[in-house]
Amino acid sequence: MDIRNLLEKVKNGDIDIDLAIDKLKDLPYEDIGYANIDHHRQIRNGYPEVIYCEGKSDEHILGIIKRMNEKGSNILGTRCRKDTYKKIRNIYPNCEYEELSRILKIENKPIKNIGKGKIVVVTGGTSDIPVADEAYYTAKFLGNEVERVYDVGVAGIHRLLNKLNILKSARVLIVIAGMEGALPSVVGGLVDVPVIAVPTSVGYGANFGGISALLTMLNSCASGISVVNIDNGFGAGYLAATINKLD
Amino acid sequence: MDIRNLLEKVKNGDIDIDLAIDKLKDLPYEDIGYANIDHHRQIRNGYPEVIYCEGKSDEHILGIIKRMNEKGSNILGTRCRKDTYKKIRNIYPNCEYEELSRILKIENKPIKNIGKGKIVVVTGGTSDIPVADEAYYTAKFLGNEVERVYDVGVAGIHRLLNKLNILKSARVLIVIAGMEGALPSVVGGLVDVPVIAVPTSVGYGANFGGISALLTMLNSCASGISVVNIDNGFGAGYLAATINKLD
Amino acid sequence: MDIRNLLEKVKNGDIDIDLAIDKLKDLPYEDIGYANIDHHRQIRNGYPEVIYCEGKSDEHILGIIKRMNEKGSNILGTRCRKDTYKKIRNIYPNCEYEELSRILKIENKPIKNIGKGKIVVVTGGTSDIPVADEAYYTAKFLGNEVERVYDVGVAGIHRLLNKLNILKSARVLIVIAGMEGALPSVVGGLVDVPVIAVPTSVGYGANFGGISALLTMLNSCASGISVVNIDNGFGAGYLAATINKLD
Amino acid sequence: MDIRNLLEKVKNGDIDIDLAIDKLKDLPYEDIGYANIDHHRQIRNGYPEVIYCEGKSDEHILGIIKRMNEKGSNILGTRCRKDTYKKIRNIYPNCEYEELSRILKIENKPIKNIGKGKIVVVTGGTSDIPVADEAYYTAKFLGNEVERVYDVGVAGIHRLLNKLNILKSARVLIVIAGMEGALPSVVGGLVDVPVIAVPTSVGYGANFGGISALLTMLNSCASGISVVNIDNGFGAGYLAATINKLD
Amino acid sequence: MDIRNLLEKVKNGDIDIDLAIDKLKDLPYEDIGYANIDHHRQIRNGYPEVIYCEGKSDEHILGIIKRMNEKGSNILGTRCRKDTYKKIRNIYPNCEYEELSRILKIENKPIKNIGKGKIVVVTGGTSDIPVADEAYYTAKFLGNEVERVYDVGVAGIHRLLNKLNILKSARVLIVIAGMEGALPSVVGGLVDVPVIAVPTSVGYGANFGGISALLTMLNSCASGISVVNIDNGFGAGYLAATINKLD
Amino acid sequence: MDIRNLLEKVKNGDIDIDLAIDKLKDLPYEDIGYANIDHHRQIRNGYPEVIYCEGKSDEHILGIIKRMNEKGSNILGTRCRKDTYKKIRNIYPNCEYEELSRILKIENKPIKNIGKGKIVVVTGGTSDIPVADEAYYTAKFLGNEVERVYDVGVAGIHRLLNKLNILKSARVLIVIAGMEGALPSVVGGLVDVPVIAVPTSVGYGANFGGISALLTMLNSCASGISVVNIDNGFGAGYLAATINKLD
Amino acid sequence: MDIRNLLEKVKNGDIDIDLAIDKLKDLPYEDIGYANIDHHRQIRNGYPEVIYCEGKSDEHILGIIKRMNEKGSNILGTRCRKDTYKKIRNIYPNCEYEELSRILKIENKPIKNIGKGKIVVVTGGTSDIPVADEAYYTAKFLGNEVERVYDVGVAGIHRLLNKLNILKSARVLIVIAGMEGALPSVVGGLVDVPVIAVPTSVGYGANFGGISALLTMLNSCASGISVVNIDNGFGAGYLAATINKLD
Amino acid sequence: MDIRNLLEKVKNGDIDIDLAIDKLKDLPYEDIGYANIDHHRQIRNGYPEVIYCEGKSDEHILGIIKRMNEKGSNILGTRCRKDTYKKIRNIYPNCEYEELSRILKIENKPIKNIGKGKIVVVTGGTSDIPVADEAYYTAKFLGNEVERVYDVGVAGIHRLLNKLNILKSARVLIVIAGMEGALPSVVGGLVDVPVIAVPTSVGYGANFGGISALLTMLNSCASGISVVNIDNGFGAGYLAATINKLD
Repeated sequence: MDIRNLLEKVKNGDIDIDLAIDKLKDLPYEDIGYANIDHHRQIRNGYPEVIYCEGKSDEHILGIIKRMNEKGSNILGTRCRKDTYKKIRNIYPNCEYEELSRILKIENKPIKNIGKGKIVVVTGGTSDIPVADEAYYTAKFLGNEVERVYDVGVAGIHRLLNKLNILKSARVLIVIAGMEGALPSVVGGLVDVPVIAVPTSVGYGANFGGISALLTMLNSCASGISVVNIDNGFGAGYLAATINKLD
Repeated sequence: MDIRNLLEKVKNGDIDIDLAIDKLKDLPYEDIGYANIDHHRQIRNGYPEVIYCEGKSDEHILGIIKRMNEKGSNILGTRCRKDTYKKIRNIYPNCEYEELSRILKIENKPIKNIGKGKIVVVTGGTSDIPVADEAYYTAKFLGNEVERVYDVGVAGIHRLLNKLNILKSARVLIVIAGMEGALPSVVGGLVDVPVIAVPTSVGYGANFGGISALLTMLNSCASGISVVNIDNGFGAGYLAATINKLD
Repeated sequence: MDIRNLLEKVKNGDIDIDLAIDKLKDLPYEDIGYANIDHHRQIRNGYPEVIYCEGKSDEHILGIIKRMNEKGSNILGTRCRKDTYKKIRNIYPNCEYEELSRILKIENKPIKNIGKGKIVVVTGGTSDIPVADEAYYTAKFLGNEVERVYDVGVAGIHRLLNKLNILKSARVLIVIAGMEGALPSVVGGLVDVPVIAVPTSVGYGANFGGISALLTMLNSCASGISVVNIDNGFGAGYLAATINKLD
Repeated sequence: MDIRNLLEKVKNGDIDIDLAIDKLKDLPYEDIGYANIDHHRQIRNGYPEVIYCEGKSDEHILGIIKRMNEKGSNILGTRCRKDTYKKIRNIYPNCEYEELSRILKIENKPIKNIGKGKIVVVTGGTSDIPVADEAYYTAKFLGNEVERVYDVGVAGIHRLLNKLNILKSARVLIVIAGMEGALPSVVGGLVDVPVIAVPTSVGYGANFGGISALLTMLNSCASGISVVNIDNGFGAGYLAATINKLD
Repeated sequence: MDIRNLLEKVKNGDIDIDLAIDKLKDLPYEDIGYANIDHHRQIRNGYPEVIYCEGKSDEHILGIIKRMNEKGSNILGTRCRKDTYKKIRNIYPNCEYEELSRILKIENKPIKNIGKGKIVVVTGGTSDIPVADEAYYTAKFLGNEVERVYDVGVAGIHRLLNKLNILKSARVLIVIAGMEGALPSVVGGLVDVPVIAVPTSVGYGANFGGISALLTMLNSCASGISVVNIDNGFGAGYLAATINKLD
Repeated sequence: MDIRNLLEKVKNGDIDIDLAIDKLKDLPYEDIGYANIDHHRQIRNGYPEVIYCEGKSDEHILGIIKRMNEKGSNILGTRCRKDTYKKIRNIYPNCEYEELSRILKIENKPIKNIGKGKIVVVTGGTSDIPVADEAYYTAKFLGNEVERVYDVGVAGIHRLLNKLNILKSARVLIVIAGMEGALPSVVGGLVDVPVIAVPTSVGYGANFGGISALLTMLNSCASGISVVNIDNGFGAGYLAATINKLD
Repeated sequence: MDIRNLLEKVKNGDIDIDLAIDKLKDLPYEDIGYANIDHHRQIRNGYPEVIYCEGKSDEHILGIIKRMNEKGSNILGTRCRKDTYKKIRNIYPNCEYEELSRILKIENKPIKNIGKGKIVVVTGGTSDIPVADEAYYTAKFLGNEVERVYDVGVAGIHRLLNKLNILKSARVLIVIAGMEGALPSVVGGLVDVPVIAVPTSVGYGANFGGISALLTMLNSCASGISVVNIDNGFGAGYLAATINKLD
Repeated sequence: MDIRNLLEKVKNGDIDIDLAIDKLKDLPYEDIGYANIDHHRQIRNGYPEVIYCEGKSDEHILGIIKRMNEKGSNILGTRCRKDTYKKIRNIYPNCEYEELSRILKIENKPIKNIGKGKIVVVTGGTSDIPVADEAYYTAKFLGNEVERVYDVGVAGIHRLLNKLNILKSARVLIVIAGMEGALPSVVGGLVDVPVIAVPTSVGYGANFGGISALLTMLNSCASGISVVNIDNGFGAGYLAATINKLD
């Protein structure tokens, strides 16, 4: 552990105490005024850096990317406006953009596959695709094999059963549904691997922007299921990757 | 229509105007101070009289039964306390009681089967049985053939598919579920007859006394489904009977 | 049942096992990547195909219509943007559009009347008409005689009583109301046929986009009433048709 | 105005300044430590004193009554536990108690009729009677003629129409309903006098302890209606009296 | 009563039975397809006709005004878009418009003062004025003397106490407040006449579009207060007028 | 796969078609009237059978245990009343009970450790222990090494940092907190393994029986976190085991 | 700072590195299995130790008190059951108990007055006293002069104005109210010192266990006000003390 | 006190009684029709005048500023639209504007530092800056030294610990966070001075426009924390200043 190293150096007089105190502070974060960038995570596990773009000005996003890029990191931006993307591409031409899921990516070095198995992303309907693709691209960027099975909601249960062999081939499942959100319960009863449920804000009337689907998933009578926030495809992809790299 | 009859009598002088006005008021309801009893419905369609016992004192319930019984009606009491039942049985020994569903019944004349097909009552779990039995006994009392399929929730989808032939034999389906409440959506995708969904307050955590299941059912992506209030087994049974007697 | 047929063929060696497994998968659904089209329902009951257009891109909607049209189906689109309609009409000139209810329809073959009685659609106010017309056109497309009674809300109870003979002529009633949503309770007390209640998001202040009306309808003290989601005219029309074709 | 009187006395030297300051403080309220009793209102308009008993200890209630009784006031206690009543009766034998509505009353002097017309209290069901009686006894104590019309809910609209002449005889109406709470809207459309709507917590499922009825009443499409809190029979009775004494 | 008249005519053969049945239906309402206009109220009490314009198309509003205008009624439109007003003015040049409160008015005959006393409209802040003016103009149109006291919220209690003599001069008070909505409680403790509380959607954060103020007013510890829906200035003005014309 | 086996037997005439259809139905579930027992899962993965006891009668629980016990399964009962436990112990003396977490267990055969790493259960406070122990015993029963770190909530951040080496030794973390529920966010920022967050209903005031903690966890700004229902220690333990057995 | 001290000792070889690591862990917290006791705070500022007793078993509470008492600390227990108090008194006879506020206190050494001014606790009603007394005793135990002004709610504004000089004598105000919760807004407009608002769960109907008062206080239009959780008298007393000891 | 002065003058005949009554009314407020300006506060404590601009027309804002400016006050406008600012600057060229926080300021005289210590403003993320800056500029305008520490949310706890010495240098802390809102709990456990928590509406999914963060903060298990409304940076800055000027 670094702290022991540092203490040994202090003991041996190899380092000044005030400097040691500073070191303890400075290592993992870089403070650029409006943001504290965490380079730590990237160093530790080779993951790309991630920027949640919503609610940040273009200037802030560009500033953060500049610092990350200087280190040669791969960079993933979520909820990125198309206009922002265009500004970034002018400066970093290797920048790419997925329009439906609003994912921005800069690959400065090849992505290594570090997942131990396959992640499968399942949706109830066609309208859940933007969230599903956010999960899909996130998990791919984090070094995983990912397969998609879309529009197999519970109101036509045979559509789902037709895909059973794909479901059963997964090491981790991400199951995404809006409206009544019942799909994870059914899937959870069919497999024996972790199921990450993602409610979407798809629907109308008393769906309350996804609350109905969220509650359904929290109350699932199937075991082995957990839930991330409404429309949080990124969170699901990240968690799936975290599980899938366990060995 | 009665009103034409009455008007004809008025025209012919067969009836006094003040009396005619009174007639218009008095026909269908009997005012006993704390309640206005509707004998009308019973006369029209041969249905038993129904008393919602919750929140009524034993004295009031007994008073209402007394008036109904004088007419020889069949009587159905819902949400009846066991103590109340015992008091009633002392006076009306032909009174019966279903403990789980808290249904009280007095059969003063045989129930005629007036339903055109079969009603099937389905539940997700064992804990939904009190509500399901309220629907079951209500529909039977209203003159229907009823069959029960219990504990076939979506987390073990094959349990449900095993019963598919029974589901398909129904003219009307009542589907009852707590927790995530996804069962009606799956059933609704498997059949082509009306599905009445009943959320129950079974569950814990963020199920909010049945609200989670209620929202799930309202947001169902399957067609042909409608919803009654939480735990309202009586309402589902009554509506199923209303549909099943259509010819 | 098809599965018996298939098993018989397997037994007789008329079909290879792997092929049999494939057959079981392929029959009712057509997977076009972003959607799994259910041609099954159409084959079974002659209903038109239905597309819920909200949240789908024009390209997806056109792609789905193309596949459906190839089979000569009648097609119903709900919540269809006017712009989308115009694009579709350029390709399928027999396409029609109801602006108020945003209903799109393509009649490739005449609609057969398969309903056993009349469906009556009732509204509390003028502002409920878009939802009411969605129910009206849906039920008509599904082969029913439908009649409309609009703006007869409970604050002027005689407006409603004036239409009593129309209400009583219905085999199924769809009752639509916003604001306090009391109309279904009153109608439910006047008739003895199924009442489908539809809350609308009409109103202001503490109506919460229709929640107030929804709760009113769920808590109705009248029997024989069930509820569909807020503004879900299509769901009401579809359910009414499902009930009305029971024989 | 008293303050002018007082200032005149100050000017004339008839009263000491410090005493004047004290006078200004002491007049209307009596501070007994745990409560500030408002004798003012009673002096002004001859109304009885009112104690909201819920959440107060018996000792506090008795202490407050003692001070009030010393002035010979009539006293009204709402939400009074039966046990509390018994303790009070031991000390003040002219104390009376209405068990259903939990109203306590001490008439130290005859109640004068000060209302200009009749108040009519209407309920949707039998279970609303405790709240309705709280309104009834409150309005009577405040010097009004009051008439009761119970169990005339909207699901049997003719029960209500039968009582139309009583409704039309009122100067102020209190309309009380639980479950869907639609009664005030219908009544409001039938009369041209102020309607005070009282939601009750009667019902089950998604009625949320009266919230459903409350929202219904707030969203009423009839004019001339206002709402008091759930189960607040006292508030309705008091307001009706306040309106009815206007001349 | 008209019904007796009619019955007498029927008895005397002065009117045909079928015609009598029609008469009973036709009198108070005029059905113009998308709306049932209630001319009844206007005839009864000389009130202007009122149109709630929100959610109605310009065509519908114009159609309704045309029918009303033919009878020479005074007309009040609430929540009227400015564009709509301009179209109406082109046809009916005597049409006027209050921009802040979006009130439209057509005075075809002079407004008679029928109120027995003065109505006072009070607001907590400057931002409540649009709602307050809706109440103000409504009450004036219904024939009342009305006075305004604006921006006297409870956080500066002396601002309110400075206006005490105006408050005490009212026969009915309308008290309007957003944010915490405490003003009606304070006013209710200062006067002995009916207080109509109107919550407004003014505020931010956890005010939930007026719900916070609504709950405050419903839970008021002052007596003699009732509440109308959020931002419902019209409802308050109408109710105040209804109370103020009692004699 | 069994279905292929069966089909081969059908092809070879080794099994009758009707019998084959029956087989397909009967295998995994045993229908005992009020419950459909899933013996399937146990056979597949050696997991103990699990009974959710809440809302089931003692008779039902005993009946289910009897069937399970006949197969020699290990049995886990959650939310088991102490009284129920006593009845069960009379019949199955090897039954054990954890009073705080209300866990019932019958070990008919030794539990094999099948987890690949260590699961660590962390709580914010002392009052979260019942839920935490439910997770702890569930995970142990499912064959895992589990360690507990209790009462290290965020208001004393150094308590948590003191345990950092234990947190970092986990392959899966279960983090349990009531009140503000912030612990999972902090833990999630300190580790790189999956974090299962469990909100508890501990707290008072505006915690709404755990909703506050639930929302906190869903909105966590840390990655790699997912959430199960309020107080759902069993679900967390089961999911942790599901993740921990991945290889 | 201690960490510098420790580092100096490490540098000088006065302390072993492993021991230094241990020291860093052990100082402020004592881990007794089910709880991590924070002796730190007590050492720092002489405050009594505080135990939140709700949801803790008597054994746990006794165990924690035992450890605290060994250090001679003053001890404050909140939400303490009377039964628990009796058990504690048997062991620690100098233990005292305030029944209304359920405060437990052990004074092992005299309380020093460390507040710079006076704290005043104000309530709207008599029923708020239990919460108010929790604040009162907490602030006193933390070394403050505290004065109480009870039952001066806004519906009788002169009761409050009568106490203005006491309000103005405070350095910090705690203002406690249930029902509509408007008192802090009015007080906040009268003084220029910090106001801590405490909503209480007193009330009925749509007060939602204090939510109504909570929202009122959060939306206060007066400045200088902040809010603690519903019924959280302890939190208010603690914060008031924290402010009052600033110099 | 002024009232004694006035009374002495009345006694001595130095002032006419009617004039005295007027004086009592006129002093602190200036009524300009649509607003009652409180010059009182400014006179008392030298604070700048504050205008909450949201929901006020430009004309009203300009009118209020004109009156304030005539007195030479410093003026602070919150939630000011940029367009409004430009109109004001044309008239008052010394007007300044902070775009991110939408703060408008006119310094007619130098701001005196009246705070006794330093206020520190802390945020969880970059997106909280608009609210944080509103607090920052408010506190500075009210005469305080203020320091900012931004983007130190709990998911990277070391970022926060790195800034511990700044946190400990504060006399009052304002802690601002969206999403899960856990930062104030952690900060509250690290310091012994008052912490003002501000939830922001930053986040998505089930954060409900800041409600999630608000609940987290209200339920904080740390002591010494209180909460202001969502996004209410001004309120936090004002309260911090009120605390910081206590001596």
